[in-house]
Amino acid sequence: MTTDTTTNSPVTVLGLGSMGSALAAALLKAGHPTTVWNRSPGKADDLVAAGAVRAASVTDAIKASPLVIACLLDYPVVEELLAPAADALTGRDLVNLTNGTPDQARALAARLDARGAWYVDGGIMAIPRLIGTPEGFILYSGSRETFDRARPALDRLGGAHYLGGDAGLASLYDLALLSAMYGMASGVRHAITMVGEERAAEFGSAYLAPWLQAMAAPIGQGAAEDEEASPLGMQAVGMSNIVEASRGEGVPNVLLSHLLIAMQDIVDAGHDDLLPPLIDQIRKAG
Amino acid sequence: MTTDTTTNSPVTVLGLGSMGSALAAALLKAGHPTTVWNRSPGKADDLVAAGAVRAASVTDAIKASPLVIACLLDYPVVEELLAPAADALTGRDLVNLTNGTPDQARALAARLDARGAWYVDGGIMAIPRLIGTPEGFILYSGSRETFDRARPALDRLGGAHYLGGDAGLASLYDLALLSAMYGMASGVRHAITMVGEERAAEFGSAYLAPWLQAMAAPIGQGAAEDEEASPLGMQAVGMSNIVEASRGEGVPNVLLSHLLIAMQDIVDAGHDDLLPPLIDQIRKAG
Repeated sequence: MTTDTTTNSPVTVLGLGSMGSALAAALLKAGHPTTVWNRSPGKADDLVAAGAVRAASVTDAIKASPLVIACLLDYPVVEELLAPAADALTGRDLVNLTNGTPDQARALAARLDARGAWYVDGGIMAIPRLIGTPEGFILYSGSRETFDRARPALDRLGGAHYLGGDAGLASLYDLALLSAMYGMASGVRHAITMVGEERAAEFGSAYLAPWLQAMAAPIGQGAAEDEEASPLGMQAVGMSNIVEASRGEGVPNVLLSHLLIAMQDIVDAGHDDLLPPLIDQIRKAG
Repeated sequence: MTTDTTTNSPVTVLGLGSMGSALAAALLKAGHPTTVWNRSPGKADDLVAAGAVRAASVTDAIKASPLVIACLLDYPVVEELLAPAADALTGRDLVNLTNGTPDQARALAARLDARGAWYVDGGIMAIPRLIGTPEGFILYSGSRETFDRARPALDRLGGAHYLGGDAGLASLYDLALLSAMYGMASGVRHAITMVGEERAAEFGSAYLAPWLQAMAAPIGQGAAEDEEASPLGMQAVGMSNIVEASRGEGVPNVLLSHLLIAMQDIVDAGHDDLLPPLIDQIRKAG
């Protein structure tokens, strides 16, 4: 199938949660004829008022555009909605921005390929407010042809990064980035709990935010970080001080769990005099 | 005691590990007459060649300057070294940059106060290479008078931030920042393990570093973050996808521990259908 790649090619958006709505709004704003569908049709009201077409069924929605973007709760919902609309997908491009696992993405890509539809999986690294701004970016993987055809529309949604032909890659990178964010969030909660709520705002903006940004900057530059880290013996002292001070300030034991990982590394590297009793203590209390 | 606050007042540095050596080098470079002491005196050779004076004992070192900066392994070492030199400290300013707990700092401040010495505790938020550059900063708390008198010298070491009269504050903030860094590091290891070593460098520099910097930027701005976070139900789906994909990619169970904290929050907020079995599973395997 030859898809119109002029700037304003029609696009369909399936799923109008806060993210799906933001995607459809960005496409509308850029002048794409936009068809929308949501299980509760009322969610489309604002978009329809702004010029979108409300489709009566998933099949109608798919038939309205050569490019279909799905942004739903999870893969079981994607599969449930697409199953009765299978024929309509043949020859069309599907860009699925629903959060899922790499294996779910690969399985869906294979099923769509068997039906003659083209599949790209995507991971949105942005909150809805940042859709359509340079601050948000979206990772894509799967059919390079679909990505290239869809690119003019995808560029409306935020920075578009194509990772490769394996449909699971976008999800893998997406989930890896989220896991790192949760690690940082766990450390941030630990830190805020230590300094206390009344100091949290000033501590957070004046010290914690710039500190973590500075510490994150060299990630991926490899060897340089390791060479410059403190000697492990000194890190072990610091770690033990963190645990002691955390307890002094009433930090719940569960928030110490990320320290166990770093401590075990230090022990594994041969500094086994100070930390094992601490590790045992935290594990038992956790 | 009246301390000379002209730019080049004499300073003594106790402890010449990589950090203490960097401190002494920055003071020397700025033109401060600098006296140094280290348990293994050979560590002072390079500094002496650059113009520092090597003291034969801790007492001699303290007597050489109105301002003494200590940068040692831990507080027991600080106490052990200062005990026989107690009289020499009377009337002098001690800035202790040794990593310790808030309670250790408060106890030392009280003992020195009883002896008529002035005490400031500090936490160095920099690696040795960044000492003396605008990228490194040091947190201070304790005697305001000592901080003000020492300021011209302290400014040579990096951005100087005075937190208040409680000598334990600098250590509290220091350890809280380190705990947040370890949380981020634990998330980073999880993420790198998921994408695999061969993709780590490109993933780290192109995606992970900018992502974490963007996520860290609003820390301390409070309400805005919470309002904009994904709905908890969607976060629960994402969390379960992270766990499933992590296992698919062979991420060790211990690296999932930071996710437990975020999961428990989601459950506590009333989304108890999806995550409790996962939480149990990770706890049992961890």
